[in-house]
Amino acid sequence: MDEVTGAQLIAEALKSQNVEYMFGIVGVPIIEVAMAAQAAGIKYVGMRNEQAVEACRLYSKFSARPSSLEMIPAVVEKAVRSSIYGRPGATYIDIAGDMVNAKIDRASVRFVSCCPAPPVSQADSREITQAVRLLRAAQRPLIIIGKGAAYARAEKEVRELVEVTGIPFLPTPMGKGVLSDDHPNCVAAARSRALLQADVIVLLGARLNWILHFGFPPRFSPHVKIIQVDLCAEELSNNVRAASALLGDIGAVVRQLLETVRSWRFPSDSQWWLTLKEKMTANAQISKSLALQSTLPMNYYTAFHHISELLPKDCIIVSEGANTMDIGRTMLLNYLPRHRLDAGTFGTMGVGPGFAIAAAVLEQTQKSAQRVVCIEGDSAFGFSGMEVETMCRYKLPIIIIVINNNGIYSGVDPKTWKEMEKMGDMTTIAPPVTLLPEAQYEQVMSAFGGRGYLVRTVEELRSALQESLDNTQMPSLLNVLIDPASDLFNYLQASRISTYFGAI
Amino acid sequence: MDEVTGAQLIAEALKSQNVEYMFGIVGVPIIEVAMAAQAAGIKYVGMRNEQAVEACRLYSKFSARPSSLEMIPAVVEKAVRSSIYGRPGATYIDIAGDMVNAKIDRASVRFVSCCPAPPVSQADSREITQAVRLLRAAQRPLIIIGKGAAYARAEKEVRELVEVTGIPFLPTPMGKGVLSDDHPNCVAAARSRALLQADVIVLLGARLNWILHFGFPPRFSPHVKIIQVDLCAEELSNNVRAASALLGDIGAVVRQLLETVRSWRFPSDSQWWLTLKEKMTANAQISKSLALQSTLPMNYYTAFHHISELLPKDCIIVSEGANTMDIGRTMLLNYLPRHRLDAGTFGTMGVGPGFAIAAAVLEQTQKSAQRVVCIEGDSAFGFSGMEVETMCRYKLPIIIIVINNNGIYSGVDPKTWKEMEKMGDMTTIAPPVTLLPEAQYEQVMSAFGGRGYLVRTVEELRSALQESLDNTQMPSLLNVLIDPASDLFNYLQASRISTYFGAI
Amino acid sequence: MDEVTGAQLIAEALKSQNVEYMFGIVGVPIIEVAMAAQAAGIKYVGMRNEQAVEACRLYSKFSARPSSLEMIPAVVEKAVRSSIYGRPGATYIDIAGDMVNAKIDRASVRFVSCCPAPPVSQADSREITQAVRLLRAAQRPLIIIGKGAAYARAEKEVRELVEVTGIPFLPTPMGKGVLSDDHPNCVAAARSRALLQADVIVLLGARLNWILHFGFPPRFSPHVKIIQVDLCAEELSNNVRAASALLGDIGAVVRQLLETVRSWRFPSDSQWWLTLKEKMTANAQISKSLALQSTLPMNYYTAFHHISELLPKDCIIVSEGANTMDIGRTMLLNYLPRHRLDAGTFGTMGVGPGFAIAAAVLEQTQKSAQRVVCIEGDSAFGFSGMEVETMCRYKLPIIIIVINNNGIYSGVDPKTWKEMEKMGDMTTIAPPVTLLPEAQYEQVMSAFGGRGYLVRTVEELRSALQESLDNTQMPSLLNVLIDPASDLFNYLQASRISTYFGAI
Amino acid sequence: MDEVTGAQLIAEALKSQNVEYMFGIVGVPIIEVAMAAQAAGIKYVGMRNEQAVEACRLYSKFSARPSSLEMIPAVVEKAVRSSIYGRPGATYIDIAGDMVNAKIDRASVRFVSCCPAPPVSQADSREITQAVRLLRAAQRPLIIIGKGAAYARAEKEVRELVEVTGIPFLPTPMGKGVLSDDHPNCVAAARSRALLQADVIVLLGARLNWILHFGFPPRFSPHVKIIQVDLCAEELSNNVRAASALLGDIGAVVRQLLETVRSWRFPSDSQWWLTLKEKMTANAQISKSLALQSTLPMNYYTAFHHISELLPKDCIIVSEGANTMDIGRTMLLNYLPRHRLDAGTFGTMGVGPGFAIAAAVLEQTQKSAQRVVCIEGDSAFGFSGMEVETMCRYKLPIIIIVINNNGIYSGVDPKTWKEMEKMGDMTTIAPPVTLLPEAQYEQVMSAFGGRGYLVRTVEELRSALQESLDNTQMPSLLNVLIDPASDLFNYLQASRISTYFGAI
Repeated sequence: MDEVTGAQLIAEALKSQNVEYMFGIVGVPIIEVAMAAQAAGIKYVGMRNEQAVEACRLYSKFSARPSSLEMIPAVVEKAVRSSIYGRPGATYIDIAGDMVNAKIDRASVRFVSCCPAPPVSQADSREITQAVRLLRAAQRPLIIIGKGAAYARAEKEVRELVEVTGIPFLPTPMGKGVLSDDHPNCVAAARSRALLQADVIVLLGARLNWILHFGFPPRFSPHVKIIQVDLCAEELSNNVRAASALLGDIGAVVRQLLETVRSWRFPSDSQWWLTLKEKMTANAQISKSLALQSTLPMNYYTAFHHISELLPKDCIIVSEGANTMDIGRTMLLNYLPRHRLDAGTFGTMGVGPGFAIAAAVLEQTQKSAQRVVCIEGDSAFGFSGMEVETMCRYKLPIIIIVINNNGIYSGVDPKTWKEMEKMGDMTTIAPPVTLLPEAQYEQVMSAFGGRGYLVRTVEELRSALQESLDNTQMPSLLNVLIDPASDLFNYLQASRISTYFGAI
Repeated sequence: MDEVTGAQLIAEALKSQNVEYMFGIVGVPIIEVAMAAQAAGIKYVGMRNEQAVEACRLYSKFSARPSSLEMIPAVVEKAVRSSIYGRPGATYIDIAGDMVNAKIDRASVRFVSCCPAPPVSQADSREITQAVRLLRAAQRPLIIIGKGAAYARAEKEVRELVEVTGIPFLPTPMGKGVLSDDHPNCVAAARSRALLQADVIVLLGARLNWILHFGFPPRFSPHVKIIQVDLCAEELSNNVRAASALLGDIGAVVRQLLETVRSWRFPSDSQWWLTLKEKMTANAQISKSLALQSTLPMNYYTAFHHISELLPKDCIIVSEGANTMDIGRTMLLNYLPRHRLDAGTFGTMGVGPGFAIAAAVLEQTQKSAQRVVCIEGDSAFGFSGMEVETMCRYKLPIIIIVINNNGIYSGVDPKTWKEMEKMGDMTTIAPPVTLLPEAQYEQVMSAFGGRGYLVRTVEELRSALQESLDNTQMPSLLNVLIDPASDLFNYLQASRISTYFGAI
Repeated sequence: MDEVTGAQLIAEALKSQNVEYMFGIVGVPIIEVAMAAQAAGIKYVGMRNEQAVEACRLYSKFSARPSSLEMIPAVVEKAVRSSIYGRPGATYIDIAGDMVNAKIDRASVRFVSCCPAPPVSQADSREITQAVRLLRAAQRPLIIIGKGAAYARAEKEVRELVEVTGIPFLPTPMGKGVLSDDHPNCVAAARSRALLQADVIVLLGARLNWILHFGFPPRFSPHVKIIQVDLCAEELSNNVRAASALLGDIGAVVRQLLETVRSWRFPSDSQWWLTLKEKMTANAQISKSLALQSTLPMNYYTAFHHISELLPKDCIIVSEGANTMDIGRTMLLNYLPRHRLDAGTFGTMGVGPGFAIAAAVLEQTQKSAQRVVCIEGDSAFGFSGMEVETMCRYKLPIIIIVINNNGIYSGVDPKTWKEMEKMGDMTTIAPPVTLLPEAQYEQVMSAFGGRGYLVRTVEELRSALQESLDNTQMPSLLNVLIDPASDLFNYLQASRISTYFGAI
Repeated sequence: MDEVTGAQLIAEALKSQNVEYMFGIVGVPIIEVAMAAQAAGIKYVGMRNEQAVEACRLYSKFSARPSSLEMIPAVVEKAVRSSIYGRPGATYIDIAGDMVNAKIDRASVRFVSCCPAPPVSQADSREITQAVRLLRAAQRPLIIIGKGAAYARAEKEVRELVEVTGIPFLPTPMGKGVLSDDHPNCVAAARSRALLQADVIVLLGARLNWILHFGFPPRFSPHVKIIQVDLCAEELSNNVRAASALLGDIGAVVRQLLETVRSWRFPSDSQWWLTLKEKMTANAQISKSLALQSTLPMNYYTAFHHISELLPKDCIIVSEGANTMDIGRTMLLNYLPRHRLDAGTFGTMGVGPGFAIAAAVLEQTQKSAQRVVCIEGDSAFGFSGMEVETMCRYKLPIIIIVINNNGIYSGVDPKTWKEMEKMGDMTTIAPPVTLLPEAQYEQVMSAFGGRGYLVRTVEELRSALQESLDNTQMPSLLNVLIDPASDLFNYLQASRISTYFGAI
């Protein structure tokens, strides 16, 4: 009799499904599973806290609890297949602790081979005709490229659609890079105007959620016509009724559109392009003037401007925080698809370091020279900051840039802080949004052998970032002190969003 | 200020989404919602127990709790749209009791118009080519028609596929009627052989779940190639890896197949057709000999044989129970699509009368002459039997046929029962599967003004059924006493299934 | 090796904990458990629907899922002990289906003996002193006897407290019978005045929930002082702050009170007794005049008056419904403790027949001559009416009295109904509260061999009830047609309660 | 109209219930609640991660969702009262985000005053008699003091019981300090023998859970008689049937025992005392010899020995980790009740810093000179290490001692680590239990202005700890490098426990 343990079955089933990496927190009884995974050829990365992965549990597409060891491979296959078929998402398997060390005869197990690549579908041809009719009639057309286009690996098709039709485009945060942010048709610098004035919008794998203001006035025209492309039927017409609902794989549907649209082209000398370019120029000037302010502490725009100048085009940008993520998104360009990881739709804090570690382990395995840059608000960094030990342990050359404004949304400067301290008990005085001024987060990195930099000036920023980019052996952390002056704009926006989430 | 209550908003939002019927159990605070629904032009059917609808809660595709009255129309639209887009399913809205009577200004509500018809997609053309290649090479091809084909209203396309290619087909329980059960290509009477020997199976909107033995040996060939057509990506390759995975709307995909398969035709004089026909003839003889047994009490086959002869071809058949549902499925033919409602995938007991009432209310509204026949095991009838009062209250001319074997899986005859009673306390003696012998369920119907029939003989059965069919004013119940002799076959099969459900 | 199955382990573990009865719905895989239970000497009662027991799941004190067969006896002991220790309540064990037929060596199981009787505690003596001080100073004292006193079997102590101190008392619905409702100190007939004017209330195992109007004004004095006796610490000071909080077993704490209160006695010629007696006399006259109305259909009071006259003092009364339960509670006296089962705190409909069956099986086993009378509203009866088959199957001589007002809260008379039918589609016309007028529920009983009576007059009521009481072999059902005229008082009250439940 | 917001109502309701501190993570919409809390006079402590408080959600005694602003004070009172009455525990209130900024008229709110102190009960006197009878007959009696005795503030009564009867005692981890660990009757140094050989055990507010090996052989005598004192009825006889079950407040019940036991005294020259003292002497020698080993890196015993010598007797010890918590518990004495916080029954990692901050904020408010010492395993520290910023922000002079063995259960030394790194990809080579060797956790403290110490030798340990104790202005962190040599003993023990948890 050839006995296998539950831990071995889990590991072998994952391996059979081509799972290459396992991330975990050891403890009883995870050790056995982690060791079995390594024995089966899966790379194991030990993390310090489950913050970065806990989100999986709540929003899983599939969850199951195998009732016997025999069922483990089948359940694992279902979980893996469910996670990659249809709209991608997390899945969850709950395996009772005493199954891990239990044993059975290998012959009694039904083994399952790796699931095939996800199936692909196309839109109905009548809807395609309708979409092209709308597009041709548009005065102010706009393409919005969402993360669905990135997941679908549809960059070639999307580029062809943009370049053949000459329509301006906007990426969503996670859609950045499907086409390069410096593509001539990218109108991100005139985002608000583009959203507001567009009369026909092609939505490619982007959801009309809070990131796109739900597609509602006053941020969108009440008369806008949406051509929506999505692989998830339930997403179509969500929040705004689609004028053309194209259900299918983004790449395949865009190919259908291209075949139908033929050689039609939206004129580059149209009023629409003029108004967008005018706004882009104006915004670029504002942004540039903010970026070139020489007062200290730096503002967000100055910091991001210089970071942007130095980052290699092929780097992977991970980002979380409030202002940090929002402003960073506009200032840091993406040039390649799937090279950006934001905190995402739910704004869960603490995911950044975990995402960065995952990306860096992958780059390390593939012996790619691409760098992972993790840009964190100081409050966000507090959630999972101890993961820098993980980065050092595995010598992952991640560059963490903490944009430090001494607080959440806004903090206070050291002098004000000291004065508040004199007034009495800080638990009654310190505004709830404040953190310790000028906290030296860079030392959290140096504590574990990585390189830490305290950055106050543009020169320090450029020099520290260049050194970090040159260092391919170890992670670095730049603690960039910026002006903590109050910026509650983002908070107010977030407050409205939360009201909506409460409803849905 | 134009005030509306929560109840009104719920009712109007449902009406906006073209919801025509509401089924409920009144009590606090449902009364107000029901009255508002009637005021808004929705028909309200008051039920006696929530058994028939409770299943909705557990497996809903979408669930939400509006946080304010303003959100109700948007949440209702999302719930309705989610229920009909993609794979159809129940959705769930939880509205706090005190919202129902709360009031707001109508002007503050965001009203939402009716969601469009569900979007449709097609399969990838390379997969279509692959499917047709497999089909042309098949020695023993089989088409399985599932409920997905019925929901997709793809009967025209499916019929053309069957008739153009000449391939034999099998319906699943809820797929019965997409093509008529008496279609010459229907091989339901050789179901086991067809499943076991087929080398290529076209699965049209059918899941490889317990009803199809998961597609596993020994019920299927281990070498069978599955051409799977489904609108749900996650369903593809579930349990058995698809040799061709066709993601899309059943009708649209079948049209793609037809365009590619052209005039190829599987020969009607093939060995495969010969072996299937031979088996069908043999099975028909067995079934006929069972059906023609003249001993009393009747057996299942006799009862169903005569019922089958009298039922009009356009009637709607609702069915639940163990043996009753299984044997009834083979004996009672369906001729039209969407004219059958089984207890379904999870075998939830108690749903039959609720399904029958819903179908009958619809027929009544449409002034259709189609009849609803609800065939229940005696145990199953116990779960929701009091709903006959609802049928009588609304004068719904449903015909309930209770196939009464005095128990669950099997019971005992009155004489044996009386002897057991003499032996002492029945709580210690009566087998858990037994019910009261010869319980007169027909009187539960006559109690409320419907017509009840106690049926022991073929003559009584035919006469009672004919009378019931002639009576279009009120419901009827036929209590058909059959042989309670032990038939544990179905139990043993169910037992194996439960093991699998435990796992997944 | 001595093998046992999971089913056997479950049955034996229950038997070890002195569980004598099992109630179930057979189906896969309950049959094996039911058969094993009978083999182990547990009486098994097969029910028709799980309505009556489903409530267990939601509010269980303890729930567990044994991870292996070895743990079953320990988990069963924990569940049984948790259900009877502290405040009694349901517990829930979830056993995976495939465990039922799995087998293990009996030697590997840790068997657990029956848990001891529940522990008992006493109140702090300083709180007792405080309580007695409050009591002695009271001008208008009142004792409220709750179901906690019944569960604690404290009838002897409570009677002594009432009789020694001469204080008036009120029972809660489930506290009825701890002292006889005809005890001279019972002021139930002046309930509203007693609650409103009392200045000191001794609350014996009763919760200040909706049944007692939460103890809030305007139903209670805002200055009332509560002496609260409860075995559940968390219940003390709930909704109203207790002036004296006596934590402990009701019997033990009442003994402590008696030891301290000594021979003090509240004067029977006090103003408080005068005002209560005056109100009782007035209410008795109103109630009597309602009861003696001779118009037909009868009203609630007439029906209950005559039922009350015939019922034996030792019968067990089960009740559910809206008006039926509320009015019945005041009109039907209880003379013995633990002889009343109401739908209870949450007003769950459908529990009546299940409660009645459980009580009757117990009486049958104990060969007691006590009768079980189940008084149901017509709507309530619809939830579990099919359980009459269970009553007939086990020959349980339960008397069901359906108080039939053709609806929920109120219905319409047959003539009005017929007129509405002429107006068109009843789904748009029939008020949601209406049921079929004069539905003949008695035939649901006669269908299974029990005795059914349609009752319109006082004479029919008395004769049918007397016959039913004389029949000790089979169940009976009296369908008592009463005036369906609208009585929405109870609905409005329920509506307010629901608002509170929404909050808590 | 006097308007209040939801945030204000929450804050005022908490203040009314004498809640003095709020711990939170700001973000939308917590900011408003935190600011309202400060305005109401509640001290607010902003944390970095919700790890330390997330456990509250899962195991709450009470949870509610107010359906309207009016209900907030009542729900808050219920939550606070439920958390402190009966067995103390967390409670949970879920308030919809949009309620926080909603406004209502203050006059419409029902305000609720502070709930009274928890009620107290006593045991039944017959059970007391039985307990004393068992105690007098005991040959090898033992008192186990659990955290229930600490929560009940029963230290005076427990001390009297121990000193009057002369019985040896053992504290549980959280019961340490109820009596001083250096009390002559404390037999913690002979724990295993005391548990195994005791014939009568008085269990004072301690559960027979995994920490006490469930009371099962081979760790306990199969014939041991348990005298169990607990305020929670459901806990009595759990896992082992109590020979005497004393339900009530620990202090009150111990007073009852003292009144009954009178002047009886267990002889100090008994065989039982001799055998315990012999074992204590032997264990002390082993422990001393381990503690005095001079090899480097230090072992656990050496580190704890010197820490123990320097810690003031009134310090508050917080502890989490595997070996660190287990060995620390035996080596670090507690002298005062409620001066120890362990990771607790469920072994949740990451709670230490949160517990320490809560204790230190309390000490700071009370201007007590008592110090908080937080002893953490290096893996445990990774879960919430970023909370050192919180300690620095509020200048809480907590002393964190990280017992650093380079891993979980065990790690590897730097030299071995370097050799492993040469072998290739560490994700495939590093054992899952290892962390970065000699990680400089002390710098995580110095990063925020606290004092960090890297400690390798006894001298460094003593000097760093003394300096830290002298520093009352800021927190310190001692990173104590100890021998990473494998110690899997604790893992194996934990593994067995997990099996049990799986079951219950």
